[in-house]
Amino acid sequence: MLRVGVNGYGTIGKRVADAIRAQPDMEVCGVAKVSPDYVAVGAAEAGYPVYAVDADRADEFRSIGIDLAGTVDELVAASDVVVDATPSGVGADNRPLYERHDTPALFQGGEDATVAEVSFNARANFDEATDADYVRVVSCNTTGLSRFVAPLEENYGIEKVRATLVRRGGDPNQTGRGPINDALPDPVSIPSHHGPDVQTVYPELDIDTIGLKVPTTMMHVHAVNVTLDDVPDDVSDVRDRLRAEDRLLLIPDYAGIDGAGTLKDLALDAGRPRGDVWENCIWEESITLEGRDLYCMQAIHQESDVVPENVDALRAISGHLTGPESRTLTNETLGIGLGRLRGREDLTLDRQTAD
Amino acid sequence: MLRVGVNGYGTIGKRVADAIRAQPDMEVCGVAKVSPDYVAVGAAEAGYPVYAVDADRADEFRSIGIDLAGTVDELVAASDVVVDATPSGVGADNRPLYERHDTPALFQGGEDATVAEVSFNARANFDEATDADYVRVVSCNTTGLSRFVAPLEENYGIEKVRATLVRRGGDPNQTGRGPINDALPDPVSIPSHHGPDVQTVYPELDIDTIGLKVPTTMMHVHAVNVTLDDVPDDVSDVRDRLRAEDRLLLIPDYAGIDGAGTLKDLALDAGRPRGDVWENCIWEESITLEGRDLYCMQAIHQESDVVPENVDALRAISGHLTGPESRTLTNETLGIGLGRLRGREDLTLDRQTAD
Repeated sequence: MLRVGVNGYGTIGKRVADAIRAQPDMEVCGVAKVSPDYVAVGAAEAGYPVYAVDADRADEFRSIGIDLAGTVDELVAASDVVVDATPSGVGADNRPLYERHDTPALFQGGEDATVAEVSFNARANFDEATDADYVRVVSCNTTGLSRFVAPLEENYGIEKVRATLVRRGGDPNQTGRGPINDALPDPVSIPSHHGPDVQTVYPELDIDTIGLKVPTTMMHVHAVNVTLDDVPDDVSDVRDRLRAEDRLLLIPDYAGIDGAGTLKDLALDAGRPRGDVWENCIWEESITLEGRDLYCMQAIHQESDVVPENVDALRAISGHLTGPESRTLTNETLGIGLGRLRGREDLTLDRQTAD
Repeated sequence: MLRVGVNGYGTIGKRVADAIRAQPDMEVCGVAKVSPDYVAVGAAEAGYPVYAVDADRADEFRSIGIDLAGTVDELVAASDVVVDATPSGVGADNRPLYERHDTPALFQGGEDATVAEVSFNARANFDEATDADYVRVVSCNTTGLSRFVAPLEENYGIEKVRATLVRRGGDPNQTGRGPINDALPDPVSIPSHHGPDVQTVYPELDIDTIGLKVPTTMMHVHAVNVTLDDVPDDVSDVRDRLRAEDRLLLIPDYAGIDGAGTLKDLALDAGRPRGDVWENCIWEESITLEGRDLYCMQAIHQESDVVPENVDALRAISGHLTGPESRTLTNETLGIGLGRLRGREDLTLDRQTAD
C-alpha cells in the first residue's frame, strides 16, 4: 500500500486525493493546505489528515474546528511519495524539501520541465517514469494533445501538428481572473509554450501551437490539425481508432451537446464527482479528413483531465504495475470509459449500425 | 406510495425526479420527454420509464436505444399526480390533459398564477395547498424571497420589502441565451413581476422588486432590504433566526466564498448531486441593520431551489403529511441542512463561540 501525501489541496490536489482514495493499492496519508478556508474544511470533513503549510496559521485552522495533523515537513516524512499540487512555480521551490526527506515526488504541469527527470503522460510514455524519483505530470492542455496524437502517431505517422488552444480564462472558483469580455492572444508569441511542452512527452513530434484566452471557466477547446504521413482509407478508420481509446470520448451528433455547458451538464447528470470530465471530449462531427490533413475540435476539462494521469504516475514511480495495468485499474476505479458517459457512446455505435 | 409522473425532463424535471426517487413515500412512474438527446439517454440510464411527448418521434428515441414506455397521455393515466416541468407557458396548455384524466398536477413558477388554485412555498403556505388539485410551485426567485421573509414576518413584522434581483442570463446548458456582456434592466418596468409573484404566497406583503439580467449562468443574487415593524435588539438576533431556518444557509466570513463560483465549488466538493444548492445562501457579513432597515445579499441556485418545494407540494396535494413533517422528511432524504454544507455552518458557530 503506497502512502501518498498531497501537498497543495486546491483544484487539482483535492481531486487527486479523492482519486487516490479510490485505488486499492494506495492511500492518502495526509494533505497540506495553506489557507483555513472552505476547501480546508472540506479536506477535514472528507477525513484527510490536514497538515499546515504555514505553521504560524495553526491557530486559524483550530478556530474553524480543524485539528492539524502536523506540518508539511511531517507530512513529507510520513509519505512514500508526495504529489505536489501547489500553484505553478511553488512546486520547484518545494523540491529541496522532498530531496531532504529522500521522498519521490510528482509535480504538476505548471512547473518547468526541468523540475523533474521525466514529463509524463500515461498513454504516451509511462515506462519512461518507471522508478524515477521526480516526475512531472504535464498540464491539462499537453495531456489532451498527447492523448490525441498517440493513436494517430502509432497508426498513421504524423508529419506535423498545428493546434489552436482556445483556453478558459480561469477556473469556476477563480473569481479574480479575466478576461471578462475579450479574446486574448495569450501568449501572443507563436508557437505558444504548449507545443514545446508536448515535445517533452513526444521529443520527435513536429508541433506548433497558438494560444488564446476567452471569457469561459468551464473547459478549454482545441482546434486541431494533424497532417498524417499515411492517409487512412476513410475518416471512419480514424474515428474508430479514436473511439477505441479509453480516455477519448467521442460526442455523438444526436446528443445535443454543443459546448462545455452541456458537457458539464451531462457529467453532472451521470453522477460524476464534481461533474469532472477526465476524458478528452471530441465532437464526432468535427473529425474531418482533407487529403492528409485531419481536423477536429476537442474540449479539455482543465480541472480534472490530469487526475487519472497523476494516479498512473504514482504507479510508474513505485514500479509495481505496468502502464496498461495501471491505466486499466485507474479507469475502472474512477469510472473512465465504463460509466454512463460511455453508455452514451455505445448508443451512438448502435445508432450508426442501424442507419 | 404516491405514483408521480414527471412531464418535462429538463433542468427542473430531472432534478425533481431524482428527489422523488429519494423519498420513502413516493415513486416516479415515468418521465415524459420531447427530444431524444443526452438528457433523454440520462433518463433511460437512470431507470426511469420514458414516455414520448411527441409520438411521431418514437423512432428517433428507438434509434438511440431508448425503448419508450408509451405516450405522455399514458403517463398521465398511470400517475396519481403529475409534476409538470415543461417550459414556461406549456404547463398551462397541458392542464386540460390532466383534467381529462382527473389527475392532480403541480405546475412550475414560469406559469401564470392563474394556472392553479394555489401558488405554493413549503415554508410559507403549505396548508393552503392541502388537498388542492392544481398547485403552482413558485419560481426560484419567488421561492428564495418567500423563504427569507418568512421568519422576519413572523418575528418582527414587515412594513415593506425592496429587492433588486441580479438574475443569471441562462442556465449552464442554455448556450443560446444572453446577455454576453451587459447588465440588462429586465424587465425594465418597475416593479418587476417578482414582487407580485411573492404576493401570490404572501398576499398582504408590501414588496417592490427590480430585475436585471447579467452574463452569469450559475446563480441569481438578490440585494434585499426589509423594513421591519419591530426593531430587534441586535443584528445578531436576526442572524440567529435566519440561521435557525433549514433552507437558509449562512455563509461564514472565514470560508473564502466570494460568489457563485466558490459556492458551486463547495457544493461539488460536498458531493451534492449535480452540485445543487437547494438552500438560499446568505452572506453572513452582509446581514446589516440600520434602524428598522435590514439588508443582506443572498444567492439563489435557479436550477435547484424549487426541487424540495416540489416534493413538499406533492405531499400537500396528497394530504398524508403535515407541512413540518414533509419539510423534515424532504430535508433528511436530500441532505438539506444536514450534510456537509451544514457542517461548515456549525463550524462557524464554534468559531464565533471561541472568539
